[in-house]
Amino acid sequence: MINKVLIVGGTHGNETSGTTLLHSAYKSAINSQFGGLTINFAMGNPRACKQNIRYTEEDLNRQFSLTSLATEAQCYEALRAQEINQQYGPKAAPTQDIVIDIHNTTSNMGPTLIVLQADEFHIGLSRYVKQHMPSAVILVEDEKPPQDHPYLCTIGKRGLMVEVGPQEQGVCRATITQQAFEMIQHILAFCELWNNKGRAVLTELTVAPAFRLDKVVEYPLSDSGERVAMIHPELQDRDFHLLQAGDPVFAHFDGNVTTWDGEPTYPHFINEAAYQHLQIAFATADSISL
Amino acid sequence: MINKVLIVGGTHGNETSGTTLLHSAYKSAINSQFGGLTINFAMGNPRACKQNIRYTEEDLNRQFSLTSLATEAQCYEALRAQEINQQYGPKAAPTQDIVIDIHNTTSNMGPTLIVLQADEFHIGLSRYVKQHMPSAVILVEDEKPPQDHPYLCTIGKRGLMVEVGPQEQGVCRATITQQAFEMIQHILAFCELWNNKGRAVLTELTVAPAFRLDKVVEYPLSDSGERVAMIHPELQDRDFHLLQAGDPVFAHFDGNVTTWDGEPTYPHFINEAAYQHLQIAFATADSISL
Repeated sequence: MINKVLIVGGTHGNETSGTTLLHSAYKSAINSQFGGLTINFAMGNPRACKQNIRYTEEDLNRQFSLTSLATEAQCYEALRAQEINQQYGPKAAPTQDIVIDIHNTTSNMGPTLIVLQADEFHIGLSRYVKQHMPSAVILVEDEKPPQDHPYLCTIGKRGLMVEVGPQEQGVCRATITQQAFEMIQHILAFCELWNNKGRAVLTELTVAPAFRLDKVVEYPLSDSGERVAMIHPELQDRDFHLLQAGDPVFAHFDGNVTTWDGEPTYPHFINEAAYQHLQIAFATADSISL
Repeated sequence: MINKVLIVGGTHGNETSGTTLLHSAYKSAINSQFGGLTINFAMGNPRACKQNIRYTEEDLNRQFSLTSLATEAQCYEALRAQEINQQYGPKAAPTQDIVIDIHNTTSNMGPTLIVLQADEFHIGLSRYVKQHMPSAVILVEDEKPPQDHPYLCTIGKRGLMVEVGPQEQGVCRATITQQAFEMIQHILAFCELWNNKGRAVLTELTVAPAFRLDKVVEYPLSDSGERVAMIHPELQDRDFHLLQAGDPVFAHFDGNVTTWDGEPTYPHFINEAAYQHLQIAFATADSISL
């Protein structure tokens, strides 16, 4: 049974869909529409939200490992993680049946539902969301057990991220906020369906196309660590489109082009602003069915 | 005569078109293509560029008033402005014939050429750029004399800003960089034409449609200063499209809509990320011909 639901906005302080949702008529719409669920709303990183920046000292969405939560906090975000864990966790013995954490990306990923496991609940959820919101993309990040991730959403029995883009950091786009709202409505509607029917829903729903995270690809750097290329214009904005051997990937500043020489894959988080300092150009994924 | 040209990138450290141009084959292409001009290249704010942020303490592009330049610097950017002014100015007695400062916007403004005066040179330039790059937008900001602006480009005898978008802060898009490069090529080509023909070029070029900056419009705030609305989806990305009385402008978080009740106008810098902290929703402009 899904009873207690936590919806979090502002985990990254410059991703506005979550904070707007928490401050708008969308919040009361959710509350009145899903009266059968006990829904809490929380603001992830109020200090970063106030400054309209991703984080003030460290990324809050990387502070929720069991180790970090048990260690004396060395920065604001580590401390904030412990507060959130105390109030809505704890991760070691979760009280929330599901935690939904709302994010934005600057990449052209569309409304993406990130699930951390492919068990019956999440397969059913993925099918339901895809069926009711065809523009939705399902991304499975199950390269390790859910609790081994340092994400905020792992403090619940189940955890999801709603990752909607493209949206510039610090900017609120009405259409993007609307997509986040719509995806959350479908997630909550599925929770009620799951409560009513359990695993029987699996067979009632159409198998959904999805993606499974593979790895990250970095920008080419010079020997001294300076970036020497940009995303090729033919790859830019082609998140979740097939990339095959020979397709252009990087346009080098000296005029050369790097082409893809790996297995066919589905790039995403292409040119994501938040990953620039990590030199991450994009992530790759395999096509799967759920 | 235009002889000495200064091209500046990285005045804002998270606007990558300028810095990419300075680090790429575009730079040598410019040098070899316009051998008749003496072209210098300068990096505006190296400290902010390194951190991939707009500025470290204060906006560098607001530090070039004659007063600021003559006052003891109170922050890194004020000091950097004085260095730039000493090396490539001084504003009080300019040595550069023209300063071209490269910027990016997150708004859907396209490749925009911002000129600070509508004299014969700038009218000719606007006509030439528009004729050779039909996607270009000409924006005149001549609400005060050029030297009264605090912009970096005012340290030259003439100063321009190349403002290209949409591009996320801190991200390099190949197509946007290419547009900045192309616009600079046209500006430099016009400089050579001006050297050869002077004001006679005016009559040889087609009159160009342009915009003149009018004012800025702020987001609606609550009594306690909290933002209560976002840009209406029908206005978002409609930079330089006609906005008329009755057209929706703001979608309020409570579900209400504000419509435009002023004279017909042309919004731009719509939902610009860099102006969020100033609560600026967009600027308006009048349609003119140059």
